[in-house]
Order: sequence, then C-alpha cells, then structure tokens
Amino acid sequence: MSTTALPAQSSDFPAWYGEVVRRAGLAENSSVRGAMVIKPYGYAIWEAIQRELDDRIKATGHENFYFPLFVPMSVLAQEGELVEGFAPEVAVVTEAGGKKLEEPLAVRPTSEALIWSTYARWVQSYRDLPLLYNQWANVVRWELRPRLFLRTSEFLWQEGHTAHETEEEALAETLAILHDVYADMIENVLAIPVLRGRKSESERFPGAVDTYTLEALMRDGRALQAATSHYLGQGFARTFDVRFTGRDGSEQYPYATSWGATTRLVGGVVMAHGDDRGLRLPPRVAPQQVVIVPIFREEDRAGVLQAAAAVADELRAAGVRVRVDDRPEYRPGFKFNEWELKGVPLRIEIGSRDLVAGAVTVARRDIREKQQIPLARMSAAIGEMLSDVQASLFHTARDEHERRTLRDPGSYDEMIEYLREAGGFVAAGWCGRRECEVRVKDESSATIRCLPLAEQRAQASTCVCCGRTAVSDAVWAQAY
Amino acid sequence: MSTTALPAQSSDFPAWYGEVVRRAGLAENSSVRGAMVIKPYGYAIWEAIQRELDDRIKATGHENFYFPLFVPMSVLAQEGELVEGFAPEVAVVTEAGGKKLEEPLAVRPTSEALIWSTYARWVQSYRDLPLLYNQWANVVRWELRPRLFLRTSEFLWQEGHTAHETEEEALAETLAILHDVYADMIENVLAIPVLRGRKSESERFPGAVDTYTLEALMRDGRALQAATSHYLGQGFARTFDVRFTGRDGSEQYPYATSWGATTRLVGGVVMAHGDDRGLRLPPRVAPQQVVIVPIFREEDRAGVLQAAAAVADELRAAGVRVRVDDRPEYRPGFKFNEWELKGVPLRIEIGSRDLVAGAVTVARRDIREKQQIPLARMSAAIGEMLSDVQASLFHTARDEHERRTLRDPGSYDEMIEYLREAGGFVAAGWCGRRECEVRVKDESSATIRCLPLAEQRAQASTCVCCGRTAVSDAVWAQAY
Repeated sequence: MSTTALPAQSSDFPAWYGEVVRRAGLAENSSVRGAMVIKPYGYAIWEAIQRELDDRIKATGHENFYFPLFVPMSVLAQEGELVEGFAPEVAVVTEAGGKKLEEPLAVRPTSEALIWSTYARWVQSYRDLPLLYNQWANVVRWELRPRLFLRTSEFLWQEGHTAHETEEEALAETLAILHDVYADMIENVLAIPVLRGRKSESERFPGAVDTYTLEALMRDGRALQAATSHYLGQGFARTFDVRFTGRDGSEQYPYATSWGATTRLVGGVVMAHGDDRGLRLPPRVAPQQVVIVPIFREEDRAGVLQAAAAVADELRAAGVRVRVDDRPEYRPGFKFNEWELKGVPLRIEIGSRDLVAGAVTVARRDIREKQQIPLARMSAAIGEMLSDVQASLFHTARDEHERRTLRDPGSYDEMIEYLREAGGFVAAGWCGRRECEVRVKDESSATIRCLPLAEQRAQASTCVCCGRTAVSDAVWAQAY
Repeated sequence: MSTTALPAQSSDFPAWYGEVVRRAGLAENSSVRGAMVIKPYGYAIWEAIQRELDDRIKATGHENFYFPLFVPMSVLAQEGELVEGFAPEVAVVTEAGGKKLEEPLAVRPTSEALIWSTYARWVQSYRDLPLLYNQWANVVRWELRPRLFLRTSEFLWQEGHTAHETEEEALAETLAILHDVYADMIENVLAIPVLRGRKSESERFPGAVDTYTLEALMRDGRALQAATSHYLGQGFARTFDVRFTGRDGSEQYPYATSWGATTRLVGGVVMAHGDDRGLRLPPRVAPQQVVIVPIFREEDRAGVLQAAAAVADELRAAGVRVRVDDRPEYRPGFKFNEWELKGVPLRIEIGSRDLVAGAVTVARRDIREKQQIPLARMSAAIGEMLSDVQASLFHTARDEHERRTLRDPGSYDEMIEYLREAGGFVAAGWCGRRECEVRVKDESSATIRCLPLAEQRAQASTCVCCGRTAVSDAVWAQAY
C-alpha cells in the first residue's frame, strides 16, 4: 500500500476516486479494454449487496432463473427500439467451435428479447400469470470511456422480468420494486438517500412506456442513477407474440416490467460516503465491521495478542464481522491508515495499559473520534456504535443531499451556473418540451435526472427555462 | 404438466432423463444451440449447491473475486497446452461497439490464463502468498452434442485459483478442496457417494501436473465426473512470469492449483436418485422439503385449509421449506403425481378425518411409504423424517455404487462385456501404458475414470489388459 496521501476530493474528485478504488483493493483494470477485475475486497461489498437485494426480491414473491449469455441477432433485432438503443454497444460472437457461425450471436446487453421470446412458451392462460422472475448475470455493453464500477464494458447485475394480467398489476410491480426492493436496500443498507422519480422520455429505457429511477447525490455534486425499474406495457408481448386466454375467454397480451441494479452501486458507496482519508463503509455492507489492532512492547506481546483474540471471539459470537490485524511487519500507525483507507467502520486498539484498565479504545471511522469502552460491556457497546455509524452516514448524506438541492432557482442563469459547477441537484418547473431539456444540457452538461414522485406541487408553476406553464417538477444535475 | 407416464429408466434412460428435466421444470433448450434456460425449480437446486459450496470455500480461507468474461486471444495463446485443449471449443468475439476488433476476444472457457497474467502484478514477496481465491461465473465451451446440465455450450460454475509458496502446500490445497469442499458437499448434501481418485495422463486438465476427480455412479451404470481439483505445478507461473522473492531472498515461481464444480451437478442429482416416477431430491437441496396437500369436501374446506396453514407455519418456524398446494383447479391425485415428479421429499396430506384424529398422513417420496403422525409431535417427526430421507438416499446410492462395482474381473473379456453394457465401475490393475487404456476404450467405450486414492493394494497385481505388472489400480466406466 502506498503511504502518500490521497488526492483531495475537493481538488480532483476523479483522481481521488481512481486512487481510492485502487489502493483500497476494490478493483483494477484488466487487459481487456473497459472490463475490470473486481478484487476480493470490492467483491465482498458486491456480495453483501447481492444478498440484501436477493432477500428482498424473494420476499416479494420472485424466483431466480438463468437465461443464456448469447442472444441470436435475429431475436435481438425483433424488438426495434431495443436493438436501436443497444446496437452501438453490442459485442458479437461470429466464430465458435472452430467455425464461422451461420448466425452471429450478441453477447447480452440485457435479456428482455431472449426472455420474452421464451415466455411465449410459458404463458397460455391467465392462470400462468404473473411470472415473477429475476436473474443474476453478467452483461456486456461496449464502453468507450470506461471507469471502474461506474462504466465498464462488462458488469454484473440482477435483471427482473415479470409478466402480468393487467396494467394496474404491472404498474404496481414496477413501483413496488422501486420502493420496497431498491430504495429500501440503498437507503437502509448502503446508507445512501435517494430521490425517487420517473425519467423524461429522452432518458427512458429503450422499449419502456415509463422508466422509474433512484437518483443519489455523490460528494462531488454529481448524480448517480442507482437503480431503475421499467414499466414496459404490452410492447414486448406483442413483439414476441406472447398471448394468454383471459378470465373472459378472450385472447390478451400480458403487461411487462423489467428492473435492474448493478455493480455500479459499489462505486456509489465509494462516492457517497468516502472522504480524503479513503472509504467510509456503512457497517451493513462492510466486509469487516471491526478491525482490532494490538499495540504492545515485545514483553507484553503474548498477553495483548491473547486479549485481542478473546475480544474478537466475543464479537464474532455476537455476529460482528471482525479481523485481528496481527501482522508483525507493520507498525500500528501504518495499520490505522490502511484500515481507514479501507473504510472499516470501527477500529479497536488494545494495548497493555488498556488491559490494566479493563478497557479498550474504539475509534469510529466516520467521525474519527475515539472513546474508551469497558471490556465488561464491549459487545453491547460495539453493537450500538455500529448502528450509530450506519445511521450517521445516512443522516450526513441526507443532509448533504438536502443542502445541495437548489429549489426554484431565482433565474435560469442561476440554475445553469449551479449545474455547470456541479453544485448538486436543481428542482424546478419544466414545460415537458424536449427543447428546454436540450437547451439546459447544452449549456450546463446537466440532464433531467427525474420527475420526482413526491414533492409535486399542488399549484402550477412555470418552466424555469422558457416560462411556459410547467407540466411537472423536474430535477436536474450533472450525472455519472 | 403432462399426465402420461415417464419413459422407464430401464428401457430408455436418456429419454427418461430428458423428460424428467423438462416436466419437473428444471431446464429447457434455448434458441441458441447447446445453451439452456435454467428454470426456477432447477435454479433453486443450483442456488442450494452454490450456498453449500461457497460456505465451504470460505470456511477453508478463500475469498471470492471476479475476472472478465473476455480473454484476449494473445493471452489465451500464451499457455500452449491450455489453448490446444480448449481452442476447438472457444467462442470468439470479433466485433464490438459497431467495429471490428483489432484483437479477437475469447469468451472464457476457463480463466487460468487471464488470472495468472494478473497474478504477476499481485505477487512480489512470499508475504503475498498464498493467494486463495475463487470466482462464480459462466463459461462457454462450444458443444456439438449438448445435453441439459450435462454438456451445455454455456454453463455456470465456480473456479478456484490459488498460488502457493511451496509444492507441499499446493498439493495439500488440491486435496483439501477435493475432500473438504467437494466430496463433503456432494456426499453430505447431494447424498451422492463419490469415488476419489487421480486422473490418468490422457484425462488430465490441459496444463495440469495432476488432476484429482470425484466420480459418481448414475442409475444407468455410467459415471459422472462430479468435480475436479488440479495441481498445476509451476507451469502457469513460468508462462505468465509470476515470480516472488522467497524467504531466503531468492527469486522463485509459486505453485498453482485450480478447481471447479458446475451446474452439471444438478444433472447428477437427477440421475443418481431419480426413479420411474421422477426426481427424488435430497432434503438438503430440495427447494421445497415438504408439500402439504389439503383434501376436503366442500363443506370442510375452511377448516382443512386453516389446519394446513397452521401446519405450514409451524414447520416454517422450525426452519423447514414448505409449500401448501391449495390450487383449486387440481385434484389431490394430480398434485401427488406432480410433487412426486418434482421429487419433494415429504408430502403431508391433511383431511377432515385426519383432523378429527389429531393427526396428519406423511408420505415419503424416496420409499413411497405413508404413516400417520400425531399433530402434537409433528415438527420433531418431520425433522427426523427429513434426516432419514437424506441418509436413506445416500445409503441406497452407496449400496448401488458398491453392488455395481466389479472388482478384479476374472478376465479381460468379462470386464469388456461388463463395461460395454454400462454395468457400472470396474476396478482392476493397470500397467500405466496408454495403449491398454486406448484398447479398453476402443472395445467398450469406457475410460479410466480415475486411479483411486484409497483401495490401493499393498501387493502388486497385474494389468487386466496386458498382464504386465500393474503400477496402480484403475477404475473404468462409460461416462457422461
């Protein structure tokens, strides 16, 4: 591990991000352009995210399945909007088994086409509905400006694909996934507050009637699209000729949803909470929640290491993920820096003096404060402190999200200036016309992140851009 | 679900297998040749296998990571044996992002090359060793004669890749994975007894010094290679120039292992335990361990359904995976057949008469016997019965494995006849020469499954094929 300081967030956020990801051992570039190696520490965070999402996906009645990696080009091409949206990013297999293939195969950029071409065989009657399925998979979308976790040519994700008897049911599913699966996990586990909204037409998923999104603020004032849930209407059913006999005996097309969350969430955790000393991991996704650093002179070695092991055992029995850093080749100060860089929520220092006093010193990573804790009530105290760190990271991020949201700017110029400097979110009225959306983007690089679901004003306002009557509030920001 | 009987195992095992996999909802073919759709019921079995393997992989000190799907052809080509072994099966991406690629990319058939080309950056000193890593991934090996789960062009697996300071340590790792991860899981969770052994040279993994294998007997007398663990020596380290400074200051190459288990294990569960009525799932991997079928006349409906729900709640609280089949459109007999086909270990029938008697009827899928159980001790009784089913499936399979292993056949002709009819395993002496191996294969289609680790006789025997002094015992069988 390098011992030089990280670049400051305030002076060069992208450089800070790249260095933190590298030095903390989250990921690195591979020999394939745009494809990353997710290293064990980064993958452990992804595994925690997977577990939390999977639990919620199953608790809401879904089952997992697995569809093939390759999609015949003819199947992908059947859905016009989809192929148009993804064609520029598709990787194509043209040879296999030592021969040129008769039909080229797309490496899936998303699986709607293959799955809906199969649902035609699975659905005959309303009794076969709903189909509530999800898959964990890798997908490939060729990326010209890759960034670790945020934009990679291959990424890992889950993609849900459901089919419903009625429009109401499909819409309810789209929103239940947004709120009860994604927002619940991202806010309560990743401690990242999210703005919930609908995408404007230009930012919709290809083939969707409506795309719902969760938008999170990163510490450089940019937005990160954290997860999306799409209401697809009957388009895929019509394209792939999926029909069922309804309750009234008539032939009908089912209504579809799809929804996904990806490894970019790991990048979101880095950028929503990290500071100039490195990561600050929420305890619920931290691979290690507590690190114990024994501090001793040579003559106290055995006693201190024994005490450290006993503390670790006690915490493990209480369900805490803990590691004892007894590496002899490094000094305590070096270890402190390394674990701060890696964002471990709590550090316990155990020294001879502590033992005499029947206490240990506990340092919180998030606010960098230390306190003494009597050994007698250590497990309980550590449990409370982990809860405090989890809550505190969320509240800090939520306050920051609030503070950096400019509501109803005094003028269009004020808004553009704020957005251009990536100050955060701007919430204001929008007339709904594409030309105002384009104008803001041209002049500030900011896009409409969403039309928020809450906070719609009862009274009509005006479009911040053209002064016409607003059809909706919109939230703008520069985005990843 | 079709109501006609399955093909009998004894008359057409492949037809039986295909029908069971399809009708039980485990998997189906996709529009891409050789690539399957793993359906929810089949995927749930794979998830149980994943969880059990992952727990054991982590308990033995390994961490997960993730490497890219694509491997530049030049990287793959560096390891001569590997590329020679896999070239005929590789799928190749030649276009991406709308352009022809300068260098074609292989879709990984296995990840040794990419991972070892990266380990060069991760290893400098003996202090960096061992590297104990694993990944869960999809791989592609073009398959000309695909069969669901057993041979598919894409399959899911885990692949472990470790690097060690010494040969002893790497060898110990190879065997620890074979015994403590794979054999432990396959025997205790999947209830499939395995023969542990070393592969002959002709069956070794390309680039391996030694390949260790677990071989299981299927109910048609053929062997299934259930998992393999490879000792790779220093070959990959030399090829990819991975060096470290040893304890004595000298520059050294680390020793490698790799090991994998795949979705073919789901096919193994089907073929090791299934009977003419369908699957028989070991409780530890059964997506549902108990199905409750309420039986009632219309006037008893509410009471019986309420009782069924109460029984389900009680079992769930005891940690049992249970489902109440209250579908009104099917009769109990239809449901019995369906759940027998799907291999659910226990069926509880609840009827009005049972309720009056304060009891339920429980039917075991494996031996198809019914018994009455008083409601008062139901949870405990169900727990015991699930353990009994788990143990009984294993013992039945182990007895079958024993019974169908022909040891020291009286003559070469007897052996060939036994193997040609796929009677099971033949254990006999082997001189170690390739020509005897080839002769047996030519005359019986059987291959040396392994040179067993146990059961090596103290006394020298002779080669069953040529009569020369045997260098080892070998076990032959026709194989999947």
